[in-house]
Amino acid sequence: MKQLFHKAKEASRTLMLLTDEQRNEVLRKIADRAEVEADKLLAANTLDLQKLEPSDPLYDRLLLTKERIQGIAGDLRNVAKLPSPLGIISKERTLANGLYLRRISVPFGVIGVIFEARPNVCFDVFSLCFKSGNACLLKGSHSAEESNRAIVNLIHEVLQDAGICVDALTLLPPTHEATAELLGAVGYVDLCIPRGGRKLIDFVRDNARVPVIETGAGVVHAYFDKDGDLEKGKCIIANAKMRRVSVCNALDCLLVHHDRTDDIPALLAPMDGRVEIVTDEATMGTEWMDYKLSLKVVDSLDEALAHIARYGSGHSECIITEDKATATRFQQMVDAACVYVNAPTSFTDGAQFGLGAEIGISTQKLGPRGPMALEEMTTYKWLINGNGQVRE
Amino acid sequence: MKQLFHKAKEASRTLMLLTDEQRNEVLRKIADRAEVEADKLLAANTLDLQKLEPSDPLYDRLLLTKERIQGIAGDLRNVAKLPSPLGIISKERTLANGLYLRRISVPFGVIGVIFEARPNVCFDVFSLCFKSGNACLLKGSHSAEESNRAIVNLIHEVLQDAGICVDALTLLPPTHEATAELLGAVGYVDLCIPRGGRKLIDFVRDNARVPVIETGAGVVHAYFDKDGDLEKGKCIIANAKMRRVSVCNALDCLLVHHDRTDDIPALLAPMDGRVEIVTDEATMGTEWMDYKLSLKVVDSLDEALAHIARYGSGHSECIITEDKATATRFQQMVDAACVYVNAPTSFTDGAQFGLGAEIGISTQKLGPRGPMALEEMTTYKWLINGNGQVRE
Repeated sequence: MKQLFHKAKEASRTLMLLTDEQRNEVLRKIADRAEVEADKLLAANTLDLQKLEPSDPLYDRLLLTKERIQGIAGDLRNVAKLPSPLGIISKERTLANGLYLRRISVPFGVIGVIFEARPNVCFDVFSLCFKSGNACLLKGSHSAEESNRAIVNLIHEVLQDAGICVDALTLLPPTHEATAELLGAVGYVDLCIPRGGRKLIDFVRDNARVPVIETGAGVVHAYFDKDGDLEKGKCIIANAKMRRVSVCNALDCLLVHHDRTDDIPALLAPMDGRVEIVTDEATMGTEWMDYKLSLKVVDSLDEALAHIARYGSGHSECIITEDKATATRFQQMVDAACVYVNAPTSFTDGAQFGLGAEIGISTQKLGPRGPMALEEMTTYKWLINGNGQVRE
Repeated sequence: MKQLFHKAKEASRTLMLLTDEQRNEVLRKIADRAEVEADKLLAANTLDLQKLEPSDPLYDRLLLTKERIQGIAGDLRNVAKLPSPLGIISKERTLANGLYLRRISVPFGVIGVIFEARPNVCFDVFSLCFKSGNACLLKGSHSAEESNRAIVNLIHEVLQDAGICVDALTLLPPTHEATAELLGAVGYVDLCIPRGGRKLIDFVRDNARVPVIETGAGVVHAYFDKDGDLEKGKCIIANAKMRRVSVCNALDCLLVHHDRTDDIPALLAPMDGRVEIVTDEATMGTEWMDYKLSLKVVDSLDEALAHIARYGSGHSECIITEDKATATRFQQMVDAACVYVNAPTSFTDGAQFGLGAEIGISTQKLGPRGPMALEEMTTYKWLINGNGQVRE
């Protein structure tokens, strides 16, 4: 395994020398080949699917179809169209002694991503890592092994044709040992991103010795304030809860100011009885991923803030209010990646935010926070150019 | 201990509501009081020093004097003069649907700092954390316990007078248990920064469950290229090695292109025989912290790059060359926080870089990299303001 890490590190050193156009060309060729060789990918996918019952919820997440492959190819072509996140100078100054300093964006180097099911993640992660000059190590799940291997083989063929080291993308075995080795690979892995449920994320955070970005877990609140507009509240709550219940930005808990208790039936009406309302205090802080919604009446903005501070996961939080001071205080006090006023948390998404893509939603504060796309896959270094100056 | 962490978290929520002027006023008052009550601090410091022999190298690092306290007070007043790093909008856009997005700098929340000896660190860390709106948890060493406690008491008195929660600054017991609890305080500690030697940093990285910034360890190289200017090389190498041998940006290894082997005596001459030259391959990668310098002749730029990739710690690296293409390639290929052309690594320092202060030099790539001051003690969040828009 160490040898795979070492090769990825070596590859990362050559990747930073490619031009953006070379990278884009590779992404477009992968898109083309994925469409041309769709049957190969589907055949591999069938081998994975045969191990499941069609009624298994995993089945749909694992499933590839011609249409889904076309969607993947479209995403690859979109990433190729995005501006390069590399070489951006975020600070530039000349010191009194003539030293010229620049702070410039560069790739991390090697990024490890641990993910569950969904073979399209191989394409997504590779495209964002490659476009941002990073090598990547993918650790997928056993259930998607055949699909993942077919996808990685296809990408390797394109890399080889382009004369680029195939170690730019490495598929690790779908084993716990691979996860453990990846998390301990200090000096080889510059960043590790777990994409999956709470259990995976907790395991990675508790065991990693390499830097980690926690993603995805969203215990999401909406607070309907005493000065909330009822019509806006109805739209926002229904959209945040119902658009897709299985995503991390979906609403989990509605807090309502006690002056507006009478409006609760109207607020819930657009959901048409399809959502189970849960008022049991013990369930607060649950990420439902389902047609369920916690509901609590609070006495004040401060009680709402305290509730969110206690139970929120720092993902996305929302207030519905027409009072500007209340809105400002909510946005100031809530410690989360995305804090909304009069809009649903459903918008927490890289593409929606105009980032052009998304590799995940960071819920931590060190490094990128919120939706991550290309810029968030870079770090920076300082370049200092002198002419023999010395320090006193 | 958990209760201390909880109180720090609570305090962090009130700190973000202070104005910059309130924060600056507190820092100036601490500076004044440190000068007025210098005798109190010196008395506590004497209790710590009595446990040591004056010949112990720790003695000088621990020592406070009236002059040093004046220096500390000056630093505090300087931090009070710096612009606030909070509320800076780094991205701003209005989406087609009218949603207004801002990405704005905010405090991390609670920052834990583990440090060894040097009681002035209490003032430094507190001032940068407080100015950037963060609460801090300090874990100092047993040897500086009396000094640290006296300093923290002094700061607490000023906070209390200003009506600010004293939990903005907490001194943890100087025990291993405190370190272990701090590193595991998920949900309370948003960031942990170890300041100290390699052993401390490795321990923190290997055991932390909270996000960590590795700092300080510097295995620093200078590469004298075949096109290096001899006079510049002499100045740069002597400055990088001799300015202060005990700091992390001090030179540890000189690489010389084999075409310039004959210039080695001249390159080393300004150090006047006071530096021991070590050519043993087994010592490569040593951070000397002493009047010692590894020396190696390399056949090419690529060999120098490979050597640095293998032995460098990602802190500061330098090339001496008059060839622009060589310089560019060096800056592109070297994976370090600070990459110099024709200037000594001695400049890697927050104040030198114009950051106004410094809390440490980050050698990792997730989060801030290189010298860290105020801006680097902040994260960001996204504020999204709408008017009832919903996502399709």
